[in-house]
Formats: sequence, structure tokens, C-alpha cells
Amino acid sequence: MPASLWDHTVFTAQTGQGIQLGFDLPLCSSFSHVERVPHVLPKWGCAASPCRAIRYLSKRRQERICLIGDQLCREGFDLVLLQEIWSESDYSALKAKLGGCCPFSHYFRSGVIGSGLCVFSKFPIVDTLLYQYSLNGYPYMLQHGDWFCGKSVGLVIVRIAEITFNIYVTHLHAEYSREKDAYLPHRVVQAWELAQFIRHTAKAADVVLLGGDLNMHPGDVGIRLLRGWTGLRDAFTEAKHFEGCEDGCTLVPNNCFTVKSELQPFPLGIRIDYILYKAVSSFTVRCEELRTTTGTVPGMDIPYSDHEAVMAMLCIQRLGQTAGVTIGTAMPALMEVLSEARTEVCVGLLAARRQRYSSGRMAVLAMLLLLLQAAGVLGVLGGLAAGKTFPALSFSLLAFLALAILLLSAGLHLFHSIEVKMLQGTKEQMEMAMRGLQEQPLHRH
Amino acid sequence: MPASLWDHTVFTAQTGQGIQLGFDLPLCSSFSHVERVPHVLPKWGCAASPCRAIRYLSKRRQERICLIGDQLCREGFDLVLLQEIWSESDYSALKAKLGGCCPFSHYFRSGVIGSGLCVFSKFPIVDTLLYQYSLNGYPYMLQHGDWFCGKSVGLVIVRIAEITFNIYVTHLHAEYSREKDAYLPHRVVQAWELAQFIRHTAKAADVVLLGGDLNMHPGDVGIRLLRGWTGLRDAFTEAKHFEGCEDGCTLVPNNCFTVKSELQPFPLGIRIDYILYKAVSSFTVRCEELRTTTGTVPGMDIPYSDHEAVMAMLCIQRLGQTAGVTIGTAMPALMEVLSEARTEVCVGLLAARRQRYSSGRMAVLAMLLLLLQAAGVLGVLGGLAAGKTFPALSFSLLAFLALAILLLSAGLHLFHSIEVKMLQGTKEQMEMAMRGLQEQPLHRH
Repeated sequence: MPASLWDHTVFTAQTGQGIQLGFDLPLCSSFSHVERVPHVLPKWGCAASPCRAIRYLSKRRQERICLIGDQLCREGFDLVLLQEIWSESDYSALKAKLGGCCPFSHYFRSGVIGSGLCVFSKFPIVDTLLYQYSLNGYPYMLQHGDWFCGKSVGLVIVRIAEITFNIYVTHLHAEYSREKDAYLPHRVVQAWELAQFIRHTAKAADVVLLGGDLNMHPGDVGIRLLRGWTGLRDAFTEAKHFEGCEDGCTLVPNNCFTVKSELQPFPLGIRIDYILYKAVSSFTVRCEELRTTTGTVPGMDIPYSDHEAVMAMLCIQRLGQTAGVTIGTAMPALMEVLSEARTEVCVGLLAARRQRYSSGRMAVLAMLLLLLQAAGVLGVLGGLAAGKTFPALSFSLLAFLALAILLLSAGLHLFHSIEVKMLQGTKEQMEMAMRGLQEQPLHRH
Repeated sequence: MPASLWDHTVFTAQTGQGIQLGFDLPLCSSFSHVERVPHVLPKWGCAASPCRAIRYLSKRRQERICLIGDQLCREGFDLVLLQEIWSESDYSALKAKLGGCCPFSHYFRSGVIGSGLCVFSKFPIVDTLLYQYSLNGYPYMLQHGDWFCGKSVGLVIVRIAEITFNIYVTHLHAEYSREKDAYLPHRVVQAWELAQFIRHTAKAADVVLLGGDLNMHPGDVGIRLLRGWTGLRDAFTEAKHFEGCEDGCTLVPNNCFTVKSELQPFPLGIRIDYILYKAVSSFTVRCEELRTTTGTVPGMDIPYSDHEAVMAMLCIQRLGQTAGVTIGTAMPALMEVLSEARTEVCVGLLAARRQRYSSGRMAVLAMLLLLLQAAGVLGVLGGLAAGKTFPALSFSLLAFLALAILLLSAGLHLFHSIEVKMLQGTKEQMEMAMRGLQEQPLHRH
């Protein structure tokens, strides 16, 4: 065996039939430093519709969590990234089940409901950090409910055989309508914050992995921004071998939990769950194999979740010398993406300013109405309308209505003021990035 | 000149009388790579009381901003870290004034009012990132108002002569009563998140600087946690030469903006504004000189702010070899601090759980009252009380009251649910850190 092979650390897996995945024997047994077999499996058994995995609301939730746990146990992935585990009891159930194969885990707490994010790992988790996105929909959109989850990106640091892995798991704001996507500016801000968070925290990492439900099609501005600005590569496009739903789709029409009408323009389904990766220092990462689940659980009538799971086999190799600066996207293309993203943020900024203005105006009107009523009451008390009967009931009803409108619109005004601030801040950051690119295109990473 | 001196990069300053600080001539002119003169000046001209620098509420705000701008212009610091610049027009005024000496600047937007944080720099700002603390007081504590600022830590990256500076500016939650400090758990969470944010983002930095109003006395658990967990050193205790208020106090009784009664137990004042620093890679940092302002502006009857400014002269030196792992505090001491901080978080967790429970109970009671009333109305409509007159006014008043209580307590319940989640998450992170310390005490940094 040549000496150089001793520098290789390979992560690989033995694959059986169906979605049965083993890990005991390495595929490339000629490599000496074969350590373990990492499988990154995000979105396994999790629903993209926020209410799908909420207690009392999700269909056959406990049954599915149990199936997911069993499957993960059998397959023994090195790393499991899950989203939409909203209930802590589900996390505890999975933790108990995976205690043998993935003894290390972390649940990210955030928002009212929780971020829904958790990580199971075969290797000790050295450190964690949570970054909550500054914008995440609207609290009054109760039917969508994303705001209540406190959507975030979770970072866990795992060290395997002297290699530092920065592993990110996230779930971005859902897209409820592709034609009239009111949340696009928020999702672009989230993609930007995700990219910035990865750039700033991954500087000492050897390998960066990101898995999760990004709620963006492969060509969308947010994903191009994320990939261009971080240099992350898409496991689906890079994989040597792929098996699963056609075009790697993870939200497919023949899943019984998906809303068929939403997928009408996309007969094959859409790909919105990703595994992205890059090597930062003197390592390279290759995706040997990518798989997705394909509908129902073998021998059952339900799928694990409304999204298909993504599974990757990554091969990490140490290079002799330190790798050069990795540029995700060529400079002109990156400039274009940044300018496109900036435009989306500007569109959101205009809308937020309009809403801030109209809610402020509504609050002022309600306040004026209250003042008028107060003047009326004073007039009555002062005996100006002594001869008439005072319509106390309708008067008090109106006052309460005005008060309710005042409180509500003042709250909205505050909320949209925050939104304007954050959109403005993001726009400025993007402009600074563009200026930086123009000045020194090679110092980005 | 010996060759080794060529490896030194020195940052230094010429100091005149009073608080007049120049930077044209280096003190140590024998060094060859003398580049520029960095002065870190946080808290200059900013008020610690959140309402002090808010438009319409702060005393002689515009005059003070103008004085601060003039002074900064004359002194030509390399780096200026400001807090409590709540109004963007104040930032713009300062930016216009400092255009000549500090052409690069960044204003961090956050919350309803804004984070109040901004940075002015003589050197180009390469990148920025904002991290908003997950807990920051209560929205219903209008008289304190910290919640509305969206307290954060801002990071700017500056590269000077091939040295990467990670510069953090922050402002933690105020302490309104030292005896009954209801915000202590939140401030401890903020100190922990600040420490974690610095640890995770500063891994590729050569020098780390943190400046700001930490609202903690030097011996408080939060500052010991921050220093112990990051390895940051306190410029005040390390400074070779100090000039300014006794004991380095930054909130002193003879400042006309401070509330004298709050400072009664501390006749000299308190030190709650800091400059902390450390070298991460093959550099060392020394604090050559530390100064504070001492009351009123020369020739005027007002001080710049209610806090005294802190100014440091730092000397950064390149070492021949990479510095070893810097441990801020010895392991047993760090374990003790972590356990103390964890206890504070647990105390906060108990209180938050109580508040979550009582607001939930209140919401349920209000809901029951509404249901009772609905039953009463149905009874009247059904003719059960046909003979009696229906007290419509008091009935509708009561219904509105119940509705208002329901909405309010439901909102409080949501808020305290988030609080419980974040405190629990922090407690778990601290426990993980303690486990990590016990297992591998040297892998912390």
C-alpha cells in the first residue's frame, strides 16, 4: 500500500437493496484510515407543512416517528439532521431509540413552538450554536405559523479523526404560493443570514456540511446566493451515483401528505431539501452516492413524511497541501446574484414601509376616534346634551372597538418597523459585499 | 536595527495633554512596521439609560453628539465603538463629521428602536455580522424599554497590514436594581451568547477586540463567564499606564446625568464599560495605556454622556511561532463560574415557568368567563329570563374586559414560553460545556 494512502480518511458505506443501508464494511477497504461511515440524512420523516408534525395536528405522527426511529436504527447513519421535530417528546422518543447507534444528539430550542431542528451523531458533539433568523414571516399569519417556530440555523461541531466538521441544519420559511410569494424577501434575507453565519463560523472548520429544508427550488435566487456566497456545493449535482425520486425531487405528487394542486406545474415534484458541502482547509469532499426515499415505507401504507429524505455518502480526503481559496461562483455571476437578491430585498422593503405607514395611520385614526369619544363623554357630563338620552351601550362598544384597533395597529406598526430595519440592514450588507467584490474579488473567503 | 524587528507591527500613539490624543508620530519610532495608531473608544458620548439618547427624551442630545463628533475628529482614533446611538440621524451626523479621519463605518440595525451600536474605522471594514440576543427583558416593561432596542452584538472585520481584527461591539441589558435584579438571568444568557458568538466567529482572527457597555461590575458572574470562556483580557487590569476616573469607573456620581441614589453604595462609581482583547494566532496584544474621560467637556457645563468613555492604546506584536492554546481561566475556576452561571439561569427558568403558568391560567379563566357570558346571552335570547331587563351595558363591558384579559394573557403566555425555551437551551449548552471541560480540558479554544 503506498504511503500516501495513509493520509486519506475515507467515509463510506455498504449499500444493500432498497433503502437498506449498512455501514459495517467500507466500500473502499484498500484505504487504511477508514474510520466510520457518515450518512447525512436531513428531512427524514419530517413534514414541510409546519402543522404536519405538530402534536394533535399531524397525521399519524407518533407512528411515523416510530418508523423513522426504527429505520435510522437499522441503517446506522453517522449523522442525522432532522427538521420539524416540533415536540420535545418526539425528540426524546428518537433519542431513546437511537441511543445505541447515535449516542450524541442536540435539540435546538427557539421561538414559541421550537425550531424543530435536531441532530443525532455517532461522534461526540464538541460545541453548538443557534442563530435565529431576524425575519421569519408575520405573527398574524396564524394559518401559516412559520413565525411561531422561530426559524433558525443550528450549528454543531463534530471532530472525527482530527477533522473538524461544522454541521449546519436549517429550515427556511415555507413558500405558500409560487406566483404571489409574499415571503420571498424574508426567505432571501434568511438565505443571506445563513450564508453569512456559515462564512463567519466555519473559518476554522475542515469540512462544512449543510442539510435541511431550504424551501427553494435549485434555480431560485436564495439558493444561488447561498451557494455563491459560501462556495457550498450541491450533493445532488455532484453525486457520482444517484438513486431515488426523479430529478432528486423531495416533494413529490405521489406522497399522500402533499397537496396535489400546489404541485400541478411540476409533474415530477420539486427539489427543496438539500445536502450541501465544502472542504475549507486541506481537505476535499466528494459525494459518492446520493439517495432519496421514494414514497411509502416498505410494507406500510404511509410515507415517513410529506418530504422525501435525502441521504448522502461523502468521501473526505486529506490533501498534501492546503487548498487554495475556494470561490463558489465566478465574480460576475456572483455580482449578478447579489444584485438580484438586493432587488428582492428592496421589493420587500417597499412593502414593509407601506405596511408600517398604513398601520401607523390606522393607529392615529383610532386614537383620534377615542379622543372624540372622550370629548363627547365630557360634553354629556358637562350637561351640553342634557335633554337627550345618552346611548351608553353603543358608545362603550365603539370605544372598545377603537381601543382594540389602536392596540392592534400599534403592534403591527412596531412589527413592521422591525421588518423595515432588518430589510434595510440586509440591503446595506449586500451592497457592502458587492463593493467588496468589486474592490478585491479574491478576498472573499 | 536587528532583523527581527521587521516582524513587529506596532500600533501606538502620541499623547498630548488633557484628553488630546494625536496619532501622527509613533511612540516607538525604532520599530519599522509602524503602521497606524489604533485607539479603541467605546461608550463615547452615549448614555447608559436607554431613554437618555432617544430623540425628544435625551437631554441636550444634539449638542452632545456634536461635541462627541468634534472630539473624535480632533483625536483621530483608529477605531471608535459607540453604543446608544438610537437615532439614525445622529449616526449620519457623526458619519459626516468623521468622514475625514474615520471614513469607514457601520450602523447595526435591530429591534424596534435599533441596536444603538455603530463602529467608525480608519481602515476598510471587510465584513459585518449582527447577532441578536435571544432574551432581552420584557416587552411590557415599557419604563425600561430594553426589549425594544433588540440588544445585539455587532461584529466588524477589519484587516490592517495583513492582520485580521475581529471587533465586537455590544450593549447588554441594564441593571435597574442591584438588590432585586430581575434581569440577571437574561444578562447571564446574553453574556453566554456573547462568549459563544465570539468563540465561534473569531477562529480565523488574529486579534479579537470587544468594547461596550456590558452593564456588569468586574466581579459579576456574567463578566467572569465571558472572560473565562473566551480568554479575553481586561484592558483596565492589563494597562501599563492608566489615567482617568478612580478605579477606572465609567458611571461616576459627579456626572450630572447619573442618578445619584443608584450609586450610593459605590461612592467612587462603578466600572461597567469595558475594552477586552486577546490575540488568537501568532500575535500578542498589550495595552500600553488606558484612559477614561473625567466628567464635563473641557470648557463646557455638560459631559459627553452619562457614562465616561474608555480609550485604549494597544500594541500588537507578531510572534515568531504560533502561540499556544490560550486558556482564559484555569479549569477548576472556569467550572465554578459555569456552575454559578447555570444556577442563575435555573433561577430565571423557575421564574419564567411560574409566569408562563400564571399567564396561561389567567387566559383560561378569561376564556371561561367569555363562555359563561355567551351562555348567558343564549339564555336571554332563548327567553329564559323574559321577565327581567337585560343589563346590556355592563354585560358588554365585562365581555370586552374578558376579551382584553384573554388577549393579553395569551400574549404573555407565548412570550414566557419563548423565555422558558431559551433559558432551557442555554442551561443545556452550559451543561454540555461543563461536560466538555471535564473530558478534555485543553480542547476549549
